[in-house]
Amino acid sequence: MRIVALAGGIGGARFLQGLKAAVPDADLTVIVNTGDDISLYGLRICPDLDTVMYTLGGGIDTERGWGRRDETFVVKEELEAYGGPLSWFGLGARDLATHLHRKHLLLAGLSLTEVTAELCRRWQPGATVLPMTDQQAETHVLVDDEDRPGRRKAIHFQEWWIKHRAALPAHGIVLVTEGTPEPAPGVLDAIEAADVVLLPPSNPVVSIGTVLQVKGIRDALGDKKVVGLSPIIGGAPVRGMADACLTAIGVETSAQAVGRHYGSELLDGWLVDTQDEGATVPGVEVRAVPLLMTDVQASAAMARAALDLAGV
Amino acid sequence: MRIVALAGGIGGARFLQGLKAAVPDADLTVIVNTGDDISLYGLRICPDLDTVMYTLGGGIDTERGWGRRDETFVVKEELEAYGGPLSWFGLGARDLATHLHRKHLLLAGLSLTEVTAELCRRWQPGATVLPMTDQQAETHVLVDDEDRPGRRKAIHFQEWWIKHRAALPAHGIVLVTEGTPEPAPGVLDAIEAADVVLLPPSNPVVSIGTVLQVKGIRDALGDKKVVGLSPIIGGAPVRGMADACLTAIGVETSAQAVGRHYGSELLDGWLVDTQDEGATVPGVEVRAVPLLMTDVQASAAMARAALDLAGV
Repeated sequence: MRIVALAGGIGGARFLQGLKAAVPDADLTVIVNTGDDISLYGLRICPDLDTVMYTLGGGIDTERGWGRRDETFVVKEELEAYGGPLSWFGLGARDLATHLHRKHLLLAGLSLTEVTAELCRRWQPGATVLPMTDQQAETHVLVDDEDRPGRRKAIHFQEWWIKHRAALPAHGIVLVTEGTPEPAPGVLDAIEAADVVLLPPSNPVVSIGTVLQVKGIRDALGDKKVVGLSPIIGGAPVRGMADACLTAIGVETSAQAVGRHYGSELLDGWLVDTQDEGATVPGVEVRAVPLLMTDVQASAAMARAALDLAGV
Repeated sequence: MRIVALAGGIGGARFLQGLKAAVPDADLTVIVNTGDDISLYGLRICPDLDTVMYTLGGGIDTERGWGRRDETFVVKEELEAYGGPLSWFGLGARDLATHLHRKHLLLAGLSLTEVTAELCRRWQPGATVLPMTDQQAETHVLVDDEDRPGRRKAIHFQEWWIKHRAALPAHGIVLVTEGTPEPAPGVLDAIEAADVVLLPPSNPVVSIGTVLQVKGIRDALGDKKVVGLSPIIGGAPVRGMADACLTAIGVETSAQAVGRHYGSELLDGWLVDTQDEGATVPGVEVRAVPLLMTDVQASAAMARAALDLAGV
């Protein structure tokens, strides 16, 4: 069975872990959001790609859900001692080696797709991990400009998400890029060949929503069997601050509203948690199953429910 | 008293520590070799500047002589796990923060001189630490090309020094740069204002020799009282592999030969170790004193002997 999943970071990665446990022999391609990527110190940092790679490759800190296990934050401490203005970013020392090696490969002329494949040679995630695009395309958030009352400014998504804990009201979320980003090599082919496409319970705005902005991806999904899983349970995000993102684009924080936001043009099936039983999405089959990824077994059960709903 | 010292890494930094202990009220400017600098992962790494800054600022690993105290090498381990081809470089995690912050400041448009001053705001070395130049000027070493018998290739000094432990015969040592590097702002003014200029027992070829290649420095020293200290004791370098560098430029590894290599056009006085008593340098006053920097007190005694020989 050929499966394609679009993915963001922690939620997506944990679901994929369950999916691999549920159907270990499936041919899995993951198309990963790179809108969260940020350039710090001249390094290209790819939080979602790394979270997927570390999680599937056994290198993740399972408690935190992001970054490396046995991590040490001495580099961050030292940057704070210098008064560095970027030290809010949670740069682990082991994780940093990934960014350094990535930079080395990018400087050698490799594309992000090629670099990701090279990094995965170490981690062996058991899936083809593709960035959504090789182009630079960064998510920025429109917030009030404190220095100029009545005016707004765009800040990088990571600054909004990490430094401000998504607490600054977001008036808009935009993908800053040159035109419409082209899909990375292999992305459209993988969708074309897929028996089913899954949308894990990742952030519907800045993760899945960003991947869907890449040229050709939404169209390619039109002919496919697509099943999504709600990241919202009982009116609140399972983790993270997806509610702040949904509010920014005028979507209610509920499993039903997110399903309707994706809509029947994209979805064939929509899984909501048993708490949200009764949610409806016109033209889409909705089922309620437990959606809390408490462990790999729970995630695997969710994956089986999604494949079952897809009829594959 | 206004003192200028030219300096390389470990030997220079330890001498400067002694100098500060000997004359704590002196106004000290250190002009530091940047020919050892290397770009790795897009970061500018300045081993000699950092060794001087860490040593005078109390952040050095006193055992190793380079890098940060309480250092951890997890980043290096991880780079090795990726099979990264640059993992031979001893990149400590705490030290790496200096390179990241430096990169951040360089990207913001600061010159290396300005960046160094900013880094020194944290370390408070008690001296003005200046790079010899703000321009890129990297020392390369001419070695046999194993892949093409009979031909030679240039490799970066750090690759030769660290990766190959200076064991590959060096046929030449060249400063790769655009024209002749311009002195950094403040360098010539500091020499102009100095009561005495000291050449610590740094590597005479790739440290002091490189600083002397900067435009105007050798001329500016012509009018000054200059005293040097031999890095060679009893026919061998005190530490490091200066003998390999001297051989590459056709100079014998002896205190007398290094003094004569500097010569009376540069030097007024030359301090050799008591083991090398009897060494002569035409036109230069030579004195023999203990030159082993076993501790700060020993380095301070050397500094006092140098100032005494200079007559200041």
